[in-house]
Amino acid sequence: MKTFDVYNQFDVVPIKGKDVYVYDEFNNKYLDLYGGHAVISIGHSEKKYVKNITNQLNNIGFYSNAVRNPLQDKLSNEINLQADLDNYKLFMCNSGAEAVENALKLSSFYTGKKRIIAFKNSFHGRTSAAVAVTDNKYINSELNKQHNVSFIEFNDNTKLEIELDKGDACAIIFESIQGVGGLDQPDEDFINGLAYYQKKYQVSIIADEVQSGFCRSGQFFAFQKFNIQPDIITIAKGMGNGFPVGGILVNPNIHPQKGILGTTYGGNHLACVASLRKKNNICKKALELESYFKNIASKFSSIKKVKGRGLMLGIEFDFDVSELRSKLVYEHKIFTGSSSNKNLIRILPPLSIKKNHFDIFFNALNKSL
Amino acid sequence: MKTFDVYNQFDVVPIKGKDVYVYDEFNNKYLDLYGGHAVISIGHSEKKYVKNITNQLNNIGFYSNAVRNPLQDKLSNEINLQADLDNYKLFMCNSGAEAVENALKLSSFYTGKKRIIAFKNSFHGRTSAAVAVTDNKYINSELNKQHNVSFIEFNDNTKLEIELDKGDACAIIFESIQGVGGLDQPDEDFINGLAYYQKKYQVSIIADEVQSGFCRSGQFFAFQKFNIQPDIITIAKGMGNGFPVGGILVNPNIHPQKGILGTTYGGNHLACVASLRKKNNICKKALELESYFKNIASKFSSIKKVKGRGLMLGIEFDFDVSELRSKLVYEHKIFTGSSSNKNLIRILPPLSIKKNHFDIFFNALNKSL
Repeated sequence: MKTFDVYNQFDVVPIKGKDVYVYDEFNNKYLDLYGGHAVISIGHSEKKYVKNITNQLNNIGFYSNAVRNPLQDKLSNEINLQADLDNYKLFMCNSGAEAVENALKLSSFYTGKKRIIAFKNSFHGRTSAAVAVTDNKYINSELNKQHNVSFIEFNDNTKLEIELDKGDACAIIFESIQGVGGLDQPDEDFINGLAYYQKKYQVSIIADEVQSGFCRSGQFFAFQKFNIQPDIITIAKGMGNGFPVGGILVNPNIHPQKGILGTTYGGNHLACVASLRKKNNICKKALELESYFKNIASKFSSIKKVKGRGLMLGIEFDFDVSELRSKLVYEHKIFTGSSSNKNLIRILPPLSIKKNHFDIFFNALNKSL
Repeated sequence: MKTFDVYNQFDVVPIKGKDVYVYDEFNNKYLDLYGGHAVISIGHSEKKYVKNITNQLNNIGFYSNAVRNPLQDKLSNEINLQADLDNYKLFMCNSGAEAVENALKLSSFYTGKKRIIAFKNSFHGRTSAAVAVTDNKYINSELNKQHNVSFIEFNDNTKLEIELDKGDACAIIFESIQGVGGLDQPDEDFINGLAYYQKKYQVSIIADEVQSGFCRSGQFFAFQKFNIQPDIITIAKGMGNGFPVGGILVNPNIHPQKGILGTTYGGNHLACVASLRKKNNICKKALELESYFKNIASKFSSIKKVKGRGLMLGIEFDFDVSELRSKLVYEHKIFTGSSSNKNLIRILPPLSIKKNHFDIFFNALNKSL
């Protein structure tokens, strides 16, 4: 091991990916219900995706933002169109953490304030501000903790107003479906109510769609279940189907100033091409697959609760699932995800998954329980 | 314009790159003495690079760190070998900013402290901690400014010791050759002297090699001109020749703990392959080209000063160079870089550049002055 060994890993070495499957060095075939942490959207090594990146790579893979790159405009248009947004402006960066950083920084520039209101059990990334708004002390160093952050429970309007009344909050950041936290969702009324605070306190509303965006929730963005216009939407993961890319979508009410944001790699040609795709029906399919999954899951008496939406799902048991997940990997060749809730298995497959893949999963689950 | 318009850009649209040239939509050919901000190392669309990424993309482009990826170990070995490092451990992320974030965070975890000592005129990135240690108030929001940072002048041991005596510094971060700041370099004695403080104050020494690494300075890392063993080395830019990748190299004295660092995309298969290359002679060539460049530049009476090392160079005039740089782009089809020093042109070409390209540049410069 020559790398700085910080990861708990399954002892599997994927060397090939195809649609919803990955293959190891011994040609074992694994059903991927994890998607590399909700990253694979249109499927591993999708044909057109590989072709488009290859073509672009043979022309030009990268130039910085010192020159114009109309691919960024094209991508911005396409996202607005597919997500049915009203002319949000795209700023591109390289990861979900960077997306959150830019959203928080821009909110601070825009309001002149610095406190962030985040939610209990949140996860927003690992860079300094992103990890500071992540509700996990273990991964926050003293350095990161210098940010002024208030964590409140979902749906607690009383506490929210107490924090906002301090007058120094620049942003409220929320996940419409918590990822690492274990698939909890805020009430519709609570999120809809944020619109009132948005105006009253001039606080920026940031919808973190890093994990839930690009149809994973069954809608293009998970916040679109609610009736709210975020000031900033953070995007990454499903956006690039595995290519390292992230970004923010900025409400047209916020006007750019030259130089306040910037990145060297962000918006490079490969990242644009990896993220560009025509409107398709994966949102609709995700909803169908959600119903199919939930219907079968409901028949398992050992499953205490099914959580989440679309293909961002969790099944909760009344025991620690780590052994069960190991069995699924090593005996049944199925990848699943964990969360901060030890009793929960996360299901975050490529969005190209089909019903029969869930049949395979539930069959294996049945044998493993 | 559908993007969030924060960049000052030249009105050029590169659609093809080849070695040291990029081509626009009208097939105009531009000599690239900027390299997309010191990013292009082995040359635009280098043949083997394109082939290796294409092959990898057709197998598997991405899986997260939930499973093993021996390409990361291979890359770590190769960097240690080529840089002649003694078993530093690699942690991969997606950009220079993320590299700096991880270096600072790890220093804070390791020491339990939080103040950072950085240098006047520094640039380390745009995420919260990285921008906080960047000496530019304009790009720091109130949010980012919450970090406790002391900026001191290079070579000022007195001020350095005053800051260290406060007892709360977790890291000193420095660029061996300042990039955005305008190619200033600290004295050899000053950097060598940091080894004393490293032990006395248990402070982490971070060599920021995001821009100067991977042979750009004429050595594999620019800090290797000095006699110091950094605790952490940050890497990005030249590493991936345009592919979005970054990382830190961690001194074997610092032991990893599970979970304290992490990233979804970092260390993905494409990033590894984009960064993997056999030992070559680009370091040596960079030194030769430096001499050639400096020799010609010395004959220009209008050039006040030639700064930098290797192929990380600056030429300083006694006037604002923005008009001159525009002339070079639009009349002579040559890209150059700017810096926070308005009188300085930065020269950061692909490391595959040859003497005749500098002849072309100086010829154009002569005509433009």
